[in-house]
Amino acid sequence: MPVLTNIGFLATCKEEGGQGEIHPIKNAAVAWEDDTISWVGREADLPSQYYNEDVFDADGKMVVPGLVDCHTHLAFGGWRPDEFAMRVQGKSYLDIANAGGGILSTVKETRRATEDELYKKASGFLKEMAELGVTTVECKSGYGLSVEDELKTLRVYKRLAEDQPMHIVPTFLGAHTIPPEYKDDRQAYIDLVIEDMIPEVAERELAEFCDIFTEESAFNIEESRRILTAAKAAGLTPKLHADQLTSCGGAELAAEVGAASADHLEKISDEGIAAMAKAGVVGVTLPLASLYTQEDPLNCRKLVDRGVEVAVATDFNPGSAPSYDLPLAMMLTCNQGRLSPTEVLKGTTIYAAKAIKRERKVGSIEKGKSADFAIIDAPDPDFWMYHYKGAQCLRSFRKGRKLF
Amino acid sequence: MPVLTNIGFLATCKEEGGQGEIHPIKNAAVAWEDDTISWVGREADLPSQYYNEDVFDADGKMVVPGLVDCHTHLAFGGWRPDEFAMRVQGKSYLDIANAGGGILSTVKETRRATEDELYKKASGFLKEMAELGVTTVECKSGYGLSVEDELKTLRVYKRLAEDQPMHIVPTFLGAHTIPPEYKDDRQAYIDLVIEDMIPEVAERELAEFCDIFTEESAFNIEESRRILTAAKAAGLTPKLHADQLTSCGGAELAAEVGAASADHLEKISDEGIAAMAKAGVVGVTLPLASLYTQEDPLNCRKLVDRGVEVAVATDFNPGSAPSYDLPLAMMLTCNQGRLSPTEVLKGTTIYAAKAIKRERKVGSIEKGKSADFAIIDAPDPDFWMYHYKGAQCLRSFRKGRKLF
Ligand SMILES: [Zn+2]
Ligand SMILES: [Zn+2]
Repeated sequence: MPVLTNIGFLATCKEEGGQGEIHPIKNAAVAWEDDTISWVGREADLPSQYYNEDVFDADGKMVVPGLVDCHTHLAFGGWRPDEFAMRVQGKSYLDIANAGGGILSTVKETRRATEDELYKKASGFLKEMAELGVTTVECKSGYGLSVEDELKTLRVYKRLAEDQPMHIVPTFLGAHTIPPEYKDDRQAYIDLVIEDMIPEVAERELAEFCDIFTEESAFNIEESRRILTAAKAAGLTPKLHADQLTSCGGAELAAEVGAASADHLEKISDEGIAAMAKAGVVGVTLPLASLYTQEDPLNCRKLVDRGVEVAVATDFNPGSAPSYDLPLAMMLTCNQGRLSPTEVLKGTTIYAAKAIKRERKVGSIEKGKSADFAIIDAPDPDFWMYHYKGAQCLRSFRKGRKLF
Repeated sequence: MPVLTNIGFLATCKEEGGQGEIHPIKNAAVAWEDDTISWVGREADLPSQYYNEDVFDADGKMVVPGLVDCHTHLAFGGWRPDEFAMRVQGKSYLDIANAGGGILSTVKETRRATEDELYKKASGFLKEMAELGVTTVECKSGYGLSVEDELKTLRVYKRLAEDQPMHIVPTFLGAHTIPPEYKDDRQAYIDLVIEDMIPEVAERELAEFCDIFTEESAFNIEESRRILTAAKAAGLTPKLHADQLTSCGGAELAAEVGAASADHLEKISDEGIAAMAKAGVVGVTLPLASLYTQEDPLNCRKLVDRGVEVAVATDFNPGSAPSYDLPLAMMLTCNQGRLSPTEVLKGTTIYAAKAIKRERKVGSIEKGKSADFAIIDAPDPDFWMYHYKGAQCLRSFRKGRKLF
């Protein structure tokens, strides 16, 4: 039975106690059997049976649960660096779209890519994410936008889940935008999503969640409700990209349909916050998207203060958030979103796990959970976020095995 | 004669051509003798004499000049993580000072620390900065605030310059704040700076620059002029922390006294910008300080557009910018300051070298300059800043020797 000893500060991140309560244990040890945690506590209390040859030494550092990135668009064709340069120069979303950029250029490249190409590229991302301490990644489709290409993307996630040392949680996002071939008949595309895509995805068990870009300029509240209701009936749990550009009732809809999370929320209304808090919908804040698109400041502080559990994720995608640096997203959430380091840590562990309904399995260091940890080169979460220096994950474990 | 070959993209960063012109060479090579660059060009043109056993392979990656961090407060005692948590919670500078935090707590710890302790701590920082691709670091005193403790700090920098594989540029910042024992007699402290500190520092050749925190709440324009004039007479080049909190004429004074740089500039006036452009004072933008203190957006775009050469630095210090992650400062300057990646790269190479009067020696990859390079895991500056992922420096050289 392997054991990790000499943990200076163990952030167990158990769920109870609210956003800032990480239930730390000083001078701690964690033991596991196969892929499951079997003992957690003060090292002084470690039962002698755990002292065997499989002892890993955390060297007095901090240990946190393997981080959970609960919102990414992991598999895509191409890149869009030109757009980054345009945005830096102050060009608008519309300027970029008119120059042939934007999401539709990624749709084109993703359709063109083979399943193997997408798999190989995404595998490389996962390897680097693991080095940041991430052990669970939610992955959305949504750059295929045809039955065939959405299934292709979701099959990539299925293969990654089987073959790569990372927990993968697949989400179907057919309602990401209207593809070009349906631009004059959006109703037909919505029907395609509901009548063809959702049943195919559900039947093949290629996704657990159905996400949607709810926005007047994307899928309005009525359309979103129709799609999410169909998804739910097919066994997929709703998730929403909501209230990013305008306050259009996305958060309220998330509460109404029992979504696992509503994400973005830059323009959320007071009613939306109250509805989410009441329904227990996790709010996912995406600071890298705000940074790269020079948008509004994060309002996660307000969400937390009004009783919404907040998760923090990267939104990794080739347009608005082309970085998968989750620790950087955490540091930005402290400085720009005014969450404390422990609040942010809970947002990338147990609350992020809740946003993808994995809170029974991952996101905290407790007996019975997957043995996923990251050893961080810092004495505690405050110092980690304060003296920020990029590569601070010294080692990570997932299912009890060293990732690097 | 060693040579670095197989450089996919070489950003030479020669000075001429303006902020965005990095004078790139594709498929390049660089050769050097001892510590000095002897040849730069397309690999196809590399003279055969350079093909010998000392060949380093850049593996097709980008090579940039060793980065220059032209504004740090490197040596200090203690840390201030509590203050970070307070700021995140929205506490003001005054709240923090009243709770015993702020700069004076660092003064206390720095005075308490021995020269060896400060040396050891700062050496550790330099090692990690080298891993980010940094090869030149400007270092300010200013947490001693007594003759003895200012000299102690500057002796630390002298030892670092002699013993550590990093170019160190020392700056005297006795006029950082009024120390507690002079709080009822600021005039006496200013006299001490002018009559005791500056002559001692100059005579012992412990600094090349004299910096000052010019602000109504710190040293006003009259006081700053007096101190900088005395410093100049003693052979120290002026530098200013200017117009950070209020627009009080700091930039104008920088131009008047012929400062090498004026730094911060969040509140710079239009007249100040014009004066700096005319006098050729480099403007140093400090995005990590803005991020950590939740202050104004960077206005470096305006400076560049009006003819000021802009450098980008970390401002590393234990209070307002407790990170020395210069690549992160660059990425923030793109996203928040609206400089393009090539503009930002010039700001951490040749223009940063100008801000510390080292442009003859470092900051670009040209014949005759110090053989300082960083190999970056990206195809070009745009992609580096776009698909940002922290640790992207694969290897660095300083004076022709591998740093890691
Ligand atoms: Zn997204
Ligand atoms: Zn400073």
